[in-house]
Amino acid sequence: MCDLLRINTDRGEMINDGKSRFSINGKPIYHFLGTSTFSEYTVVHVGQVAKINPEAPLDKVCVLSCGMSTGFGATVNVAKPKKGQSVAIFGLGAVGLAAAEGARVSGASRIIGVDLNPSRFELAKNFGVTEFVNPKDHNKPVQEVIAEMTGGGVDRSVECTGSIQAMISAFECVHDGWGVAVLVGVPNKDDAFKTHPVNLLNERTLKGTFFGNYKPRTDIPAVVERYMNKELELDKFITHSVPFSEINKAFEYMLAGEGLRCVIRMDA
Amino acid sequence: MCDLLRINTDRGEMINDGKSRFSINGKPIYHFLGTSTFSEYTVVHVGQVAKINPEAPLDKVCVLSCGMSTGFGATVNVAKPKKGQSVAIFGLGAVGLAAAEGARVSGASRIIGVDLNPSRFELAKNFGVTEFVNPKDHNKPVQEVIAEMTGGGVDRSVECTGSIQAMISAFECVHDGWGVAVLVGVPNKDDAFKTHPVNLLNERTLKGTFFGNYKPRTDIPAVVERYMNKELELDKFITHSVPFSEINKAFEYMLAGEGLRCVIRMDA
Repeated sequence: MCDLLRINTDRGEMINDGKSRFSINGKPIYHFLGTSTFSEYTVVHVGQVAKINPEAPLDKVCVLSCGMSTGFGATVNVAKPKKGQSVAIFGLGAVGLAAAEGARVSGASRIIGVDLNPSRFELAKNFGVTEFVNPKDHNKPVQEVIAEMTGGGVDRSVECTGSIQAMISAFECVHDGWGVAVLVGVPNKDDAFKTHPVNLLNERTLKGTFFGNYKPRTDIPAVVERYMNKELELDKFITHSVPFSEINKAFEYMLAGEGLRCVIRMDA
Repeated sequence: MCDLLRINTDRGEMINDGKSRFSINGKPIYHFLGTSTFSEYTVVHVGQVAKINPEAPLDKVCVLSCGMSTGFGATVNVAKPKKGQSVAIFGLGAVGLAAAEGARVSGASRIIGVDLNPSRFELAKNFGVTEFVNPKDHNKPVQEVIAEMTGGGVDRSVECTGSIQAMISAFECVHDGWGVAVLVGVPNKDDAFKTHPVNLLNERTLKGTFFGNYKPRTDIPAVVERYMNKELELDKFITHSVPFSEINKAFEYMLAGEGLRCVIRMDA
């Protein structure tokens, strides 16, 4: 974890002189997360620039942002399912679908999607999800449902909801002896992760990840290559595209929970 | 984890016919943990027999039992410190000292022992412990003390107490980004492990272990070889030795918390 450039939503300025590089009519415009990407040219700290394949289509690979890389990396870098293993994904939003895509690319044999919204299953199939569990459909904890489906538990689980209950279920649904659970969701400040420690003594592993354990400068170029080699599919994550002049539409889609990712085209 | 032979303190008989193999005056004597080792010859399930180097002195390698292998394996098989890393050991009883021995053998540069009993530090030095922290000496959580000592946290921690508070401290004292905490102690039935999930999101790993992740039949012979090659020291764990006729003395030492391991000699 980089102390200097660590994610900081409060820092709206450049690090060297504490000043913003943008202004409109003399009024400063601050840098969001130190990236300020809604412009054709930008000024950022050198540590926040990654050089990618110049052939890569920017209107596709731009989705390899925080959420997508986090979900994909949580599976391929942290959970690391082996070919033929079973994986449970908690939460089938864009991050969870990126985690499912990671499981698909890793050759998982069963990808169990868990979500309170059954309408998400249909879309999730495109990302490799093979089975669906809605915790509301059962009168026992979802970890027990998954244990029954899999003869003791899944090999890997990835939690992409931010709900503390889902985090606990994600840990308790992995198999004794070798199961690995990865927490991705950002919890509430006051949440406490609780489990009986015997679940750990039974040789399970609990991990968390930040940005899918990718080190952006060195690793994102390789993820772009996986897309260029058609190993990782990105197009299916892009459900909308708007020109910059209509950027507020993208926020409307987001607030309505419509689609997965909306690309803002800077060329119009 | 072997379902058939999994540790079961309630099963006093052989698996195939549910009967004991020992008796005295027609009264059955039950098999403790399926091993029944306080005799020169015994009858156990074939899955519970490991063939070791015939040159190995049985009055030394017998201490590679549950506790010792668990502590040593927790470090070398699960925490896996790299050469030069720092390791915190919670609890400096025989299991914790075996964990410290594992850290020493792994080439750890700093081995921080944590115990409420300061008299244990002197002995612990023989097992590689380089520094000592008594939580009672500080008016802040021991994880904060360790973070200050190490500039952010230890690389690895191994908890060998069974205290839920020590388990939480052992997890929270490892460094963000790469820290691994291993829980070894057997908790109370009603304990709950609680932590803020951000501790996990910061790329820490929490693991537990049973019998140090050794698979006894296949792995114990290799641990015996490490002793034969003088890599692992066992003699320092043996503080007492009594003939079988005085076996009750061994229980007295145990109840008094005296020494580490008492060998029962079957030859007298």
